[in-house]
Amino acid sequence: MQTADDDVILKALAHPARRAMLAWLKQPEQHFPDQRHPVDMGICAGQFERCGLSQSSVSTHLSTLAAAGLITPQRVGQWVFYKRNENAIAAFVARIAGI
Amino acid sequence: MQTADDDVILKALAHPARRAMLAWLKQPEQHFPDQRHPVDMGICAGQFERCGLSQSSVSTHLSTLAAAGLITPQRVGQWVFYKRNENAIAAFVARIAGI
Repeated sequence: MQTADDDVILKALAHPARRAMLAWLKQPEQHFPDQRHPVDMGICAGQFERCGLSQSSVSTHLSTLAAAGLITPQRVGQWVFYKRNENAIAAFVARIAGI
Repeated sequence: MQTADDDVILKALAHPARRAMLAWLKQPEQHFPDQRHPVDMGICAGQFERCGLSQSSVSTHLSTLAAAGLITPQRVGQWVFYKRNENAIAAFVARIAGI
């Protein structure tokens, strides 16, 4: 099991809101029907402001997930779109299966 | 994914020493050849004092892993023996596979 990276990933996952946000990104059409940009570009931060999540907590959670490599931000003009990093997630799940 | 339990488990795993201790318990004969009691009783705290792990940090790490349900302590006389809780570990791994 990798050391520093997995510490960061495990801490990033150790919050129910961040696990929920990752889960929403798994089915973006279902969870973000109101986004004007196509969901295959990724999802804008503002779209996560629900279930009591404020703009600042969404911003912090997205940063934590991105720092852990679980999601990838992509800037397009004034927008930042977030997608799951399926390769990183699958690699982590495979490592964790061996604990 | 469960909420509170998984937060506690993920935080418990977010330390390389605790992941190492869990890994050692997977192959106790290999990693604890010096224990006088049979390793199938579990492993005593003192056996983990290696790789720079002090008695107090071993004690804290074991408490954290036990509180997360990843290992189970069993008191026998003056000794406490620790074993992996394979059911809890497998259930957690199965939940994490769905992130």
